[in-house]
Amino acid sequence: MIKYPNGQPKKKTTTVKLAKSAANRGMELEKLISAANDYYLMHDIALITKRPTPINVVKINYTKGARITDAYFEKQSTTDFNGIYKHRYLDFEAKSTRLKASFPLNNIHEHQITHLENVIRHGGIAFFVVEFASLNEIYVLAASHVIGAYKNGERKSIPYAIFKEKGILVPLKINPILDYLPAVIAMFGL
Amino acid sequence: MIKYPNGQPKKKTTTVKLAKSAANRGMELEKLISAANDYYLMHDIALITKRPTPINVVKINYTKGARITDAYFEKQSTTDFNGIYKHRYLDFEAKSTRLKASFPLNNIHEHQITHLENVIRHGGIAFFVVEFASLNEIYVLAASHVIGAYKNGERKSIPYAIFKEKGILVPLKINPILDYLPAVIAMFGL
Repeated sequence: MIKYPNGQPKKKTTTVKLAKSAANRGMELEKLISAANDYYLMHDIALITKRPTPINVVKINYTKGARITDAYFEKQSTTDFNGIYKHRYLDFEAKSTRLKASFPLNNIHEHQITHLENVIRHGGIAFFVVEFASLNEIYVLAASHVIGAYKNGERKSIPYAIFKEKGILVPLKINPILDYLPAVIAMFGL
Repeated sequence: MIKYPNGQPKKKTTTVKLAKSAANRGMELEKLISAANDYYLMHDIALITKRPTPINVVKINYTKGARITDAYFEKQSTTDFNGIYKHRYLDFEAKSTRLKASFPLNNIHEHQITHLENVIRHGGIAFFVVEFASLNEIYVLAASHVIGAYKNGERKSIPYAIFKEKGILVPLKINPILDYLPAVIAMFGL
């Protein structure tokens, strides 16, 4: 990595910093969930795994094993996580926002909504884990609320008050830090 | 694509052909399963999705959007497919072999076996879809048989006779071609 002197062009630096910070935020929530999943697996509580990020591979160089030299990220057509808890199928998406008053729906894709509707119709448990990063709060919310808001074209976001009223706040613990499963169990009566 | 004249170096061609054919074989079975999954979803029978192939991204070029310029394939630590059928969690791996007398276990990773054991312990349905490509036969076999053979260090493969005896042959149909779910339903009494 090249360390730029102070005289570097300001615009470029800002762009890189923003991109990094946005990536880190999403990553942090995912990491906390994955750490909780590791804990649940180790303690035989649940088996929940992260779906790998879908990547479209364009070119592979076979001269040094199969090294990918050109590829791009695809939109996740389903959700980030799924698994099993006491014979029940779980499926959920994790999202983080820096907004305080509402959770914007613009980074949820339509096929993710369709996927969660399918999960519910086939008897699975579908929900969101939403982090209000500026408030330091993480909620579990049944996917049905998000599906409803998404299909109601008028609303482009879900008010924070809905999370307070219909969601369950996940208190942070020592191990696992983000013990989200009790909130899911309480919400769906599992 | 460059078409080589007949005078091309033989060794190189052979290598490429083998790699392609092996990749295609695996891909064909996966495609048949994904086509069946599309059919099940469209007809509201089941919701089964393929986990994306895990790829470790080393370098991203942000100058043209986020284009991946260096990455490599990781071992799948879980399985190819999971989903839900009538409230039940399903999880399975699809494998193809050109051998006629047995299904070799050497391309099943230890953490895949562990994962399938976890699925069973948490109340899920775990199985394999195995194609004997040279015989033009595809079987559904409960994961428990594969786990047993894997843990029994003496056997490095599962005899074809076990598939005949304990597995269920999936007859090919017109639509979907590989209608594997009835075999799963019969095997596990779903």
